[in-house]
Amino acid sequence: MKLVHIYAALSEFLGKLSTSGFEPSNTLAPQSGLSFFDSVLRGIGQVMLQNNSYTGLLFLVGVFYSSLMSGLAVLLGTVASTATAMLLGTDRADVRAGLFGFNGALVAIALLYFLEPSVLVFVYVVMAAACTTVVMSALMSFLEKWGIPALTAPFVVTTVVFVLACARFGRLQSTGILPTAGLPKAATVEGVVTVASLAEGLFSGIAQVFFQGSVITGIIFAVGLLISSRAVFVAALLGSLLGALVAWVMGAAEPAISSGAFGFNCVLTAIVFSRGFFVVNSHSVLYGLLAVLVTAVVYAAMSAALEPIGMPALTAPFVLTVWLFLLASPRFSRLRSSAG
Amino acid sequence: MKLVHIYAALSEFLGKLSTSGFEPSNTLAPQSGLSFFDSVLRGIGQVMLQNNSYTGLLFLVGVFYSSLMSGLAVLLGTVASTATAMLLGTDRADVRAGLFGFNGALVAIALLYFLEPSVLVFVYVVMAAACTTVVMSALMSFLEKWGIPALTAPFVVTTVVFVLACARFGRLQSTGILPTAGLPKAATVEGVVTVASLAEGLFSGIAQVFFQGSVITGIIFAVGLLISSRAVFVAALLGSLLGALVAWVMGAAEPAISSGAFGFNCVLTAIVFSRGFFVVNSHSVLYGLLAVLVTAVVYAAMSAALEPIGMPALTAPFVLTVWLFLLASPRFSRLRSSAG
Amino acid sequence: MKLVHIYAALSEFLGKLSTSGFEPSNTLAPQSGLSFFDSVLRGIGQVMLQNNSYTGLLFLVGVFYSSLMSGLAVLLGTVASTATAMLLGTDRADVRAGLFGFNGALVAIALLYFLEPSVLVFVYVVMAAACTTVVMSALMSFLEKWGIPALTAPFVVTTVVFVLACARFGRLQSTGILPTAGLPKAATVEGVVTVASLAEGLFSGIAQVFFQGSVITGIIFAVGLLISSRAVFVAALLGSLLGALVAWVMGAAEPAISSGAFGFNCVLTAIVFSRGFFVVNSHSVLYGLLAVLVTAVVYAAMSAALEPIGMPALTAPFVLTVWLFLLASPRFSRLRSSAG
Repeated sequence: MKLVHIYAALSEFLGKLSTSGFEPSNTLAPQSGLSFFDSVLRGIGQVMLQNNSYTGLLFLVGVFYSSLMSGLAVLLGTVASTATAMLLGTDRADVRAGLFGFNGALVAIALLYFLEPSVLVFVYVVMAAACTTVVMSALMSFLEKWGIPALTAPFVVTTVVFVLACARFGRLQSTGILPTAGLPKAATVEGVVTVASLAEGLFSGIAQVFFQGSVITGIIFAVGLLISSRAVFVAALLGSLLGALVAWVMGAAEPAISSGAFGFNCVLTAIVFSRGFFVVNSHSVLYGLLAVLVTAVVYAAMSAALEPIGMPALTAPFVLTVWLFLLASPRFSRLRSSAG
Repeated sequence: MKLVHIYAALSEFLGKLSTSGFEPSNTLAPQSGLSFFDSVLRGIGQVMLQNNSYTGLLFLVGVFYSSLMSGLAVLLGTVASTATAMLLGTDRADVRAGLFGFNGALVAIALLYFLEPSVLVFVYVVMAAACTTVVMSALMSFLEKWGIPALTAPFVVTTVVFVLACARFGRLQSTGILPTAGLPKAATVEGVVTVASLAEGLFSGIAQVFFQGSVITGIIFAVGLLISSRAVFVAALLGSLLGALVAWVMGAAEPAISSGAFGFNCVLTAIVFSRGFFVVNSHSVLYGLLAVLVTAVVYAAMSAALEPIGMPALTAPFVLTVWLFLLASPRFSRLRSSAG
Repeated sequence: MKLVHIYAALSEFLGKLSTSGFEPSNTLAPQSGLSFFDSVLRGIGQVMLQNNSYTGLLFLVGVFYSSLMSGLAVLLGTVASTATAMLLGTDRADVRAGLFGFNGALVAIALLYFLEPSVLVFVYVVMAAACTTVVMSALMSFLEKWGIPALTAPFVVTTVVFVLACARFGRLQSTGILPTAGLPKAATVEGVVTVASLAEGLFSGIAQVFFQGSVITGIIFAVGLLISSRAVFVAALLGSLLGALVAWVMGAAEPAISSGAFGFNCVLTAIVFSRGFFVVNSHSVLYGLLAVLVTAVVYAAMSAALEPIGMPALTAPFVLTVWLFLLASPRFSRLRSSAG
């Protein structure tokens, strides 16, 4: 059996997967146990903007591979935020597409990553995940005037609030992973960036979208993206690579590059711009590339800006950069014409 | 005379008070001295969202009971911001309802609380109170696209700006009450919270809306709310109690709980959600409860986030939480249906 | 020849200049080399809101007089942001009016003022200038719902991001001019403010709009404004003077006053309010004056608020104050009636 046949068979298989979940997401039938489970998996897939249960399942596998606690957090958070959306009577099609799951997943991983686990913390995580549903709905109402999506902003806002509150709440103890508050100061070039650093950063950057530093997890996530769309798969790898390259050229510290810290926001920006918002022409490709490069600069800036309150940038650089580039785009006629 | 008769008589008396001020606020007759005075009292009442002159009068009495300077500040600020609104030709019905008074009242108390009084500071206070009218109008224009109210945001913005400027203006000296700028760090459980702490916090939390720490003032304010609406009275007490309870469960410092620091934002959130935005059903009650609990968390987070610039959170946690919960609410069908 | 004749001749000459550039900006003919050059000069003029090539030329002369590097930066930044706008297919009339030049000019001066020049930094500057075009378009889309202009917000946002990123990028070194991150603390009155301080501050305040501290440059800029409009010329001087006076009365440090640090934001606010947004009457003049005074207070506050991240306030105080006063204005009937 030749390689080309394997590829053809794989393509056909992937093609089927990408158009279906366990149940089609546009089914408005009464929410059964299976369709709830399907919504949860799609919610996990939506962390990287994929409305696909199989992709979500692979993301979940990838997270569990790297960390049992993070895997449980993803399930708990996605279930809590999705259930809150259903209890409050949100639009069912949005719930089915996983739009009320991904921010819950992320906030739960983040809180269990930055806070020492305890019964109180688990209650706190459920409350935070429920809040992402409120923040998501609020941002949808706010942003619909401009037709731009909320992205992971609910996760960022909710995580910052619930983690910062530790500084007043003596029964919530932060783990050593949370940065200590300090004042930003000039950087020096630290460590030597090798091809291995970049290769590691390439896959870690994808894994970091779920706060994981494992190359294997990054590869599992990449396969998850490939199931959903080849364009998205390519965009994610390219985004992660570009983020690492910008960091290298600018003289960022080697550990930040190989751990994927400069990659995960760029991965997400690249995925957004691979999803056909614009006509594909030389202008729109350059526009997307600029957005990815700028995301890496915004990441550096925000991670410095948040030092005085001891908070990481999370995916705020992705959210802000994409909002700006999407808001601006209707004014650029060259992104719409086919003669680019 | 039985207790039930006293209650009935009191109810009737309160019923009369709550439907009338010194003059009905919808009178558009030329602004007389009396109607200006009435607008000022309603403006003071609006600090807790009550369009009622008697409530405003009781609030003023409560503030004077606790601090002469704060009482004078309330009068000065409310008069300055209300007069500015009239001079610039704002909608008269809004002025009569006190909508251009409450932010002036609060900014004046805050500035005379955080800055050493001097002739220059009094001029500064009048200028700041006038600014709240501009900020209020700006926010009304901005927010009307979503139909949400400005709340006390003009007070927060104006106070932060005018107090922070001290760091550049040598002739404005801060009092020892203003927090010193620092970096937020992990909290430990401080002090033992007793029933007395919670009871004190219950009324101090209401008093803190006007920057007062007195239990008696809190009780006078509560009576003021009862005059206006029984639902609001109950909501305010419940809000203050919930704020103190969240703080206690989470391990906040005892002094912060007994002084009402965790209560005042929750009081205001609870008042908003008692005012019939939604159909009353189990979902909308739970939604309001979640909003109150979240307000306490947002308070902890914002008071930490503002440490590097040495500013208190003021009522920003109330404003941001209510904005989010109101913006989100149209998307939740269960808050509208009677079958909750 | 009497003084009155000189004045008349000058007026006539200025009148001609102010209605024409090298080419009328409403020509929609294909963009020639000359019209591109004209767009660039108008872009430089727009730094102080003047759509006038001669004004832009004088600004450029003034900058070169004070600093060769800043002069080159203005050209590089304006060309880069204007060319980006053309490449992406922005509305041509906006490009011709210089609306996509001024933020590029400012970001380039700022980056070459705060960062040690290198090949990498020049590439970085071009990228930042290109970004101002995206941010400008995004803000135009966002703000058009309220009919308010983006002003220099794209410059502020882009500069803060690209300078802050230094804290992570070891190959970007900041110059000694960039403030060190610290915690704001109470000010004391420093130095003695003399008439000379105020006179120096008057012109330096205008020069500081382009980051220059030279009195001669300030005078050249003032002549540039006079060419465009006498009202604007008077407003700019008055704005700078008021900024210095507020700072003096409040007890700001003498060096901050004589260097024009308190003036440049007030200059810009005064120019906006001299441009006929409102009917000229006693109310609108007072409204404009209040806006200028408030700008100086907001400058003090923002420069303190940004200390923990070691960033200067740039023209953010101007932008925020003008946005608030413009947003609020439709609600003030006295700003529209002729009977003020």
